[in-house]
Amino acid sequence: MFEFKIKKRDKSSLARTGVFTTPHGKVQTPIFMPVGTKATVKTLAPEELKAINAEIILSNTYHLHLRPGEKLVKKMGGLHKFMNWDRPILTDSGGFQVFSLGETGHVKVTDKGAEFKSHLDGTKHMITPEKAMQIQHDLGADIIMAFDECIEGKSTKEQFAKAMKRTHEWLIRCKKEHGKNKTQALFGIVQGGTHKSLREESAKFIASMDLPGNAIGGLAVGESKTEMYKALDAAIPHLPENKPRYLMGIGTPTDLIKAVSKGIDMFDCVLPTRLGRHGAFWTNTGLQHIKNKKYRTDKNPLQKKCECYACQNYTTAYIHHLMRENEIFGHRLMTIHNIHFLIKLMHEIRQNIEKGTFTSFKKRFLSKWKTKM
Amino acid sequence: MFEFKIKKRDKSSLARTGVFTTPHGKVQTPIFMPVGTKATVKTLAPEELKAINAEIILSNTYHLHLRPGEKLVKKMGGLHKFMNWDRPILTDSGGFQVFSLGETGHVKVTDKGAEFKSHLDGTKHMITPEKAMQIQHDLGADIIMAFDECIEGKSTKEQFAKAMKRTHEWLIRCKKEHGKNKTQALFGIVQGGTHKSLREESAKFIASMDLPGNAIGGLAVGESKTEMYKALDAAIPHLPENKPRYLMGIGTPTDLIKAVSKGIDMFDCVLPTRLGRHGAFWTNTGLQHIKNKKYRTDKNPLQKKCECYACQNYTTAYIHHLMRENEIFGHRLMTIHNIHFLIKLMHEIRQNIEKGTFTSFKKRFLSKWKTKM
Repeated sequence: MFEFKIKKRDKSSLARTGVFTTPHGKVQTPIFMPVGTKATVKTLAPEELKAINAEIILSNTYHLHLRPGEKLVKKMGGLHKFMNWDRPILTDSGGFQVFSLGETGHVKVTDKGAEFKSHLDGTKHMITPEKAMQIQHDLGADIIMAFDECIEGKSTKEQFAKAMKRTHEWLIRCKKEHGKNKTQALFGIVQGGTHKSLREESAKFIASMDLPGNAIGGLAVGESKTEMYKALDAAIPHLPENKPRYLMGIGTPTDLIKAVSKGIDMFDCVLPTRLGRHGAFWTNTGLQHIKNKKYRTDKNPLQKKCECYACQNYTTAYIHHLMRENEIFGHRLMTIHNIHFLIKLMHEIRQNIEKGTFTSFKKRFLSKWKTKM
Repeated sequence: MFEFKIKKRDKSSLARTGVFTTPHGKVQTPIFMPVGTKATVKTLAPEELKAINAEIILSNTYHLHLRPGEKLVKKMGGLHKFMNWDRPILTDSGGFQVFSLGETGHVKVTDKGAEFKSHLDGTKHMITPEKAMQIQHDLGADIIMAFDECIEGKSTKEQFAKAMKRTHEWLIRCKKEHGKNKTQALFGIVQGGTHKSLREESAKFIASMDLPGNAIGGLAVGESKTEMYKALDAAIPHLPENKPRYLMGIGTPTDLIKAVSKGIDMFDCVLPTRLGRHGAFWTNTGLQHIKNKKYRTDKNPLQKKCECYACQNYTTAYIHHLMRENEIFGHRLMTIHNIHFLIKLMHEIRQNIEKGTFTSFKKRFLSKWKTKM
């Protein structure tokens, strides 16, 4: 059911284009996946996501498990039908969200799994590797993720090594529980913090499990960009060429380009949706803030020549007005623009890889970029 | 530019169908106008309003005057262009909103006009009849409203008489200021509280001004339904047959039907949008609450056979989930359903008037209705 084919390799970097096939259609890589945490990409309708060429979205197991519950979603015909999205979906395992609760002291991890208190009502829950698989089977996404242990960025190397080993043990259990399920593709997740040796070891182990795809997790959690790329560089050479590589939770336009040049094929991030709702939008020179006074009378679109619905139909002045008034339609327009920006960027990345011009495209893009994010 | 033609009169009530022509197209009456307070019908895109057959919308002078300011809207090409809505728009005069501030002690009314402090930043503003016209000229709506004095429902008959006379004086000034403007139609507003004699007197005066349309204001502000209909019954016979009659700020599905039977042609109300965002939706039996537990597993649409986007594509269970999670897409679906409900109702009302079956339709509709709103 699941198949990945490389179409074209870049000559001066590790970038490549490919296509993977899922029960809900094909996805061109490298790809950016908008995040639909609670079975909705915040503010948008499925038709709007299709209009900006979203090919696959991500949804969160942790949130859906708590509400409305995977049993309900299953009863409603699965996540695709429940949310009226007939293209591919990837669900994470809940690991990242569960361990994010760690800071509140509401998580207890043992080899068995993670016990935690719901952020909603304080009720106790337990997610084990087996349970993470069962939940994701009920949700019915095309790609599902292994249950991994994500620990705090400030942890010691020993702690990272321990969490990595547990992640590997858990992957064996996930794979076993996943069993003969062929309609959903299970991806393993490389851990190891910012330690080169751990990332190498983890990548080798994950690769050895021979799953349909491999992910790199536990990055962009507070480490410097230098450390992040060091960890990436350590892992990637050990993740097989002929399978998609997914960098979880990244990112910014510049990180997308850079990670593609290192051989990454898949990305997800809440940035375009979250930044949009908070009034920030991307242009070709970086991140801008819509509430800036200079936009009050600006008759231009957010970005000249941008093909998104927001830019095709509204002035920056109107969106400035809506965002100043905290109007939901403003949130929608900002979200559309930002997701479109990343999806269009990935499209251009693919085109440039195909044409053999990726490296010069990357240089040009990065040289124009004036902001941090 | 502005023309109203009656198409069909009902035989057993004062209901009638008609059509009025504006610079932005024709509108079939009786009509319900969704409210777009700040140059956006909350949560919706213009395309979504068109998909539910909204023919005309209302926007608020008070809010637009304060932010972004009518001068900016004019500079951006007028309200239609600013908000990307090419169908007719009606703007109110700001009177109702200004006088609603009265309760906070922030309004001082003299014969000249109303001085008030902005609810946003406390800055002082003055709206006179002339100013209300100037603002609405800058906004550029197809139909504009006279500046009237709306006083508290608890006022004495003497106070209502005084406010009514002032409203009449102000209408003379509005008409003068409006001058030879032929592209925007000015409507006068009947006042007089719940006093039969005042409503009659006011209706006669407003009618004598020979404007393109006549409105009835100052109702649904706390009086009983009996009092509201008494005031309506007093005013309507004195408002000319050959001009549209607009009942401001109404209402509920049952009030729409009843007021149509008394000869009203136009309505506006924030109920469908506001109720929707707060989790209430209409079905053929009345107002329902989406967070009710019984909807958790309901695979049906909000209303069987409903043709709106929400009902055609989503289960009640999904919308229940979204609203429980306070997801914006839930607010959108609820809003679409509720506005569609009123617009469809008006469509059915028009059809039944045309077919001569309005009275039996009205009886059937009211007999099924089980809730207050």
